[in-house]
Amino acid sequence: MSFDEITYEVDGGIATITLNRPARLNAFTLEMAHELIAAFDVADADDAVRVVVVTGAGRGFCAGADLDRGAGTFDRDAIGDVRGFGEIDGVPRDAGGAVALRIAASKKVVIGAVNGPAVGIGVTMTLPMDIRIAGENARFGFVFARRGIVLEAASSWFLPRIVGISQAMEWVATGRVFDAAEARAGGLVSRVVPPDELIPVAHGIAREIADNTSAVSVAVSRQLLWGMLGSPTPWDAHRADSRALLELGAGEDVREGVLAFLEKRSPSFPGRVTADYPGHVPPFPGAP
Amino acid sequence: MSFDEITYEVDGGIATITLNRPARLNAFTLEMAHELIAAFDVADADDAVRVVVVTGAGRGFCAGADLDRGAGTFDRDAIGDVRGFGEIDGVPRDAGGAVALRIAASKKVVIGAVNGPAVGIGVTMTLPMDIRIAGENARFGFVFARRGIVLEAASSWFLPRIVGISQAMEWVATGRVFDAAEARAGGLVSRVVPPDELIPVAHGIAREIADNTSAVSVAVSRQLLWGMLGSPTPWDAHRADSRALLELGAGEDVREGVLAFLEKRSPSFPGRVTADYPGHVPPFPGAP
Amino acid sequence: MSFDEITYEVDGGIATITLNRPARLNAFTLEMAHELIAAFDVADADDAVRVVVVTGAGRGFCAGADLDRGAGTFDRDAIGDVRGFGEIDGVPRDAGGAVALRIAASKKVVIGAVNGPAVGIGVTMTLPMDIRIAGENARFGFVFARRGIVLEAASSWFLPRIVGISQAMEWVATGRVFDAAEARAGGLVSRVVPPDELIPVAHGIAREIADNTSAVSVAVSRQLLWGMLGSPTPWDAHRADSRALLELGAGEDVREGVLAFLEKRSPSFPGRVTADYPGHVPPFPGAP
Repeated sequence: MSFDEITYEVDGGIATITLNRPARLNAFTLEMAHELIAAFDVADADDAVRVVVVTGAGRGFCAGADLDRGAGTFDRDAIGDVRGFGEIDGVPRDAGGAVALRIAASKKVVIGAVNGPAVGIGVTMTLPMDIRIAGENARFGFVFARRGIVLEAASSWFLPRIVGISQAMEWVATGRVFDAAEARAGGLVSRVVPPDELIPVAHGIAREIADNTSAVSVAVSRQLLWGMLGSPTPWDAHRADSRALLELGAGEDVREGVLAFLEKRSPSFPGRVTADYPGHVPPFPGAP
Repeated sequence: MSFDEITYEVDGGIATITLNRPARLNAFTLEMAHELIAAFDVADADDAVRVVVVTGAGRGFCAGADLDRGAGTFDRDAIGDVRGFGEIDGVPRDAGGAVALRIAASKKVVIGAVNGPAVGIGVTMTLPMDIRIAGENARFGFVFARRGIVLEAASSWFLPRIVGISQAMEWVATGRVFDAAEARAGGLVSRVVPPDELIPVAHGIAREIADNTSAVSVAVSRQLLWGMLGSPTPWDAHRADSRALLELGAGEDVREGVLAFLEKRSPSFPGRVTADYPGHVPPFPGAP
Repeated sequence: MSFDEITYEVDGGIATITLNRPARLNAFTLEMAHELIAAFDVADADDAVRVVVVTGAGRGFCAGADLDRGAGTFDRDAIGDVRGFGEIDGVPRDAGGAVALRIAASKKVVIGAVNGPAVGIGVTMTLPMDIRIAGENARFGFVFARRGIVLEAASSWFLPRIVGISQAMEWVATGRVFDAAEARAGGLVSRVVPPDELIPVAHGIAREIADNTSAVSVAVSRQLLWGMLGSPTPWDAHRADSRALLELGAGEDVREGVLAFLEKRSPSFPGRVTADYPGHVPPFPGAP
């Protein structure tokens, strides 16, 4: 795969996606949106990838929508289906939402490593990622109300589930830009580290996952956890995990996992997501 | 507007509602409920109001339901539709719930500035507010189980979404009265400040909103954030914000917001909530 | 009642359930699952019980599924309906889920006092408990992905609602075993105490509930809080608590509660859950 506005590298089970328009603080474009979706498709199809790390090239993570069209940036054409995201309920799909929903559906764990300013879509795209960590120089802003627009990328759904409705409302209503310490205190990121430790820490978490766990187990668990966030009842989870236990309980990974534990050795799981993902895991709900 | 049990003042874009029965620690009455609902109607209809601050006169915020009827306080008559809140599913609507749901539907940001005891409906009425801050002398209590009654004002829905189910259950099951520090540690309030700084801090947050953001953007974002708290899927958010982006993206506020940003000046948004609120924002869900 | 793998004792309004296979760190078996369900049935049927405390005998809380069947532990037979939990959607019900959903439906407050390792079902069974506290030597692990299986006991529904989706994903995806301090920082437990203070602290919370509150009020509030976690709208809560207020507002407990408050004395509530639980409280949603 070759990309123009991102880079995509795989090493040791970890795919690193780097937003790569450093001269523009990696400002978001429709091309970048398409490339991000394609990169997550590649990661899901590659059993060698266990975890995806997303970061930015240069000083920034992502400065938000590229405003090179000036005051017309958010005109229908700019967000329209002419760029290929289709329509939903008869209106052009928000490109940021297309990216966010693709990340939400990922079968691999996704870690956001925020290395600098993450503003607008630059921060909302990180919400469907599983873990967010920040460099000390990161900055964040849900600045939509300061631009006369509304929050996007389905962030009205994701943000309150991550930081709570009160913190969400304060950040969205003020549109303020805030530092990594405030992001950590508010629950937006789980760790703040010196800039040069950011990627090593992200890769360390990724390694902990890749070295110890079954890829199929993690993929199914991820769908169950995100999917059940929207369910009205734990009985839905009971239905889903009773079935998943039955399917995975008869598989090779659990035999290896239990034996390795009893033999006090590291497991070596044979299962592959592309081949062994069970058929009955409920998909992320609500897709048209 | 003239009120008997509250005061309502507008200054510099901020409406301040003060519960005003200080001799009774601002204990909640049906008259107060009607006046609060009316005050939020006034605030929503007034484009000069960007933020609503709610506080209490004197030493208290709100001591809960006025118990001047003694043991008969919670009889049907006392909570009944004879006072004008109507019925729901064939039973009289809880007056506290009528207030809470009106606040939830507000198009303006609502800040609770808890200046003293906030007990029973005194605290549950603050849950649909966006931001809660407390003076050091504030106290809180979900005391319903100590009175032989149940939590009201739809707080069984709001409270776990704000402080989590475990903290909610502990406070509700014990019925304990707790101080501002415990409220802060448990996520019920975001700041605890000296008493004489309470209103200045609340007004400072309000100013940050009023001075920098589009009223229409904030109103739509507020509906999206609260509304999507109850949605089963981020695709609902994607539907809603794709449409909202389309409508607001063609508006005057976004042109001003982007231009002001590019020109490094403060924006001056022309949009008005009463005239420019888009037609397709999903209303707060579930209203009969 | 006599049990083999747990003990059940009632003293002063508090039922203490102790997982009791200390030689196996109280590893979970199907027999234990049946006994836990039976014990919660007993507690709900006994008006002398106000609070249930769950802890473990010896050094552990619960080491997870007993792996005495080795690699075949999770075969269909081991989790199957032959042991009496029935089927759901045509597949055998997960025994851990049967326990968790029974705990979720409890009419009494449930406190988990985690005295040592709580791993796999050992920790997921605590999620539908209302309050979790830990001894300093407690350890936790959502280790499913390290065994090649998926999270169970409906924990994909419960866990994100307690600790947030990001913390949930990190613990589940890494499968790491972590200490009490990390559990506290991540919101899984509310207190960490020295080992010999664990049961006294749990009983202290239980006493605070039993000595001050109406059993019926607490039972109804518990159903409302857990049930509304899954509701799309606060209007459902408004419906439910308008009705509950009407029913309890006409009852004896509220008369006693208000009078005791006005007379500045401790209340003595006559209501009993077995006789006075109102008929219209919505049951925990989603049961087939």
